[in-house]
Amino acid sequence: MDSSFTDVTAQIFNLFTLTAVTTVMKELYEVNPTQHRWFYDFVRTNKPTDRKRFLHILQKENHELAERVMVTRLSLFAKWIKNLDHAEMYKDLSDQNLALMRERLMETVKWPYDGTDTNTEKVG
Amino acid sequence: MDSSFTDVTAQIFNLFTLTAVTTVMKELYEVNPTQHRWFYDFVRTNKPTDRKRFLHILQKENHELAERVMVTRLSLFAKWIKNLDHAEMYKDLSDQNLALMRERLMETVKWPYDGTDTNTEKVG
Repeated sequence: MDSSFTDVTAQIFNLFTLTAVTTVMKELYEVNPTQHRWFYDFVRTNKPTDRKRFLHILQKENHELAERVMVTRLSLFAKWIKNLDHAEMYKDLSDQNLALMRERLMETVKWPYDGTDTNTEKVG
Repeated sequence: MDSSFTDVTAQIFNLFTLTAVTTVMKELYEVNPTQHRWFYDFVRTNKPTDRKRFLHILQKENHELAERVMVTRLSLFAKWIKNLDHAEMYKDLSDQNLALMRERLMETVKWPYDGTDTNTEKVG
């Protein structure tokens, strides 16, 4: 079970690296079109889904941008954990489960007092 | 910025749904080969990367398995947040940044007392 959670952490770091890439890309678009173009092409060629490989190559080709992405992902991550509400997230996921179960209920139950024809015939 | 974090939450939920699918798949493999085979084919056809769509279809085709995945993902998530150490995660990510920067340093700096030929000439 613990190994799954290592994966989760790695995926979250991948996610924040991707978000940082997007953030830096947007910033460059506004202030430095030449560098934006370069970074855009770089990201197209070197997919940032594998964060370590991506940053490794970026560092070789443009270490300033690599450091900017690294600083940005750490700062975004810090902001995220600062505002993270575990109870709220748990409730969100639980609500999504309930919504799906309710959806099934609505689709399978035939309401006794409903005169419309939109409901399916009772299944389970 | 907030919208990025909504994405992060959604991605984390996707991640836990994927982990739950893997967990249920492993459990079925051990106790119910027929259902495992069915679920394996189902996952191949309906990629679980879009969790809502995946569970929606699974619920229609096998609502018991859908509920099992939903219960499992919530339970895995609860276990994860219970053991989550924000400070440790922050340190991990920060260490990964430092490791990359150190890697660059090692590659670009020419060590004055190093007699081997493995270092590149380039001085940063």
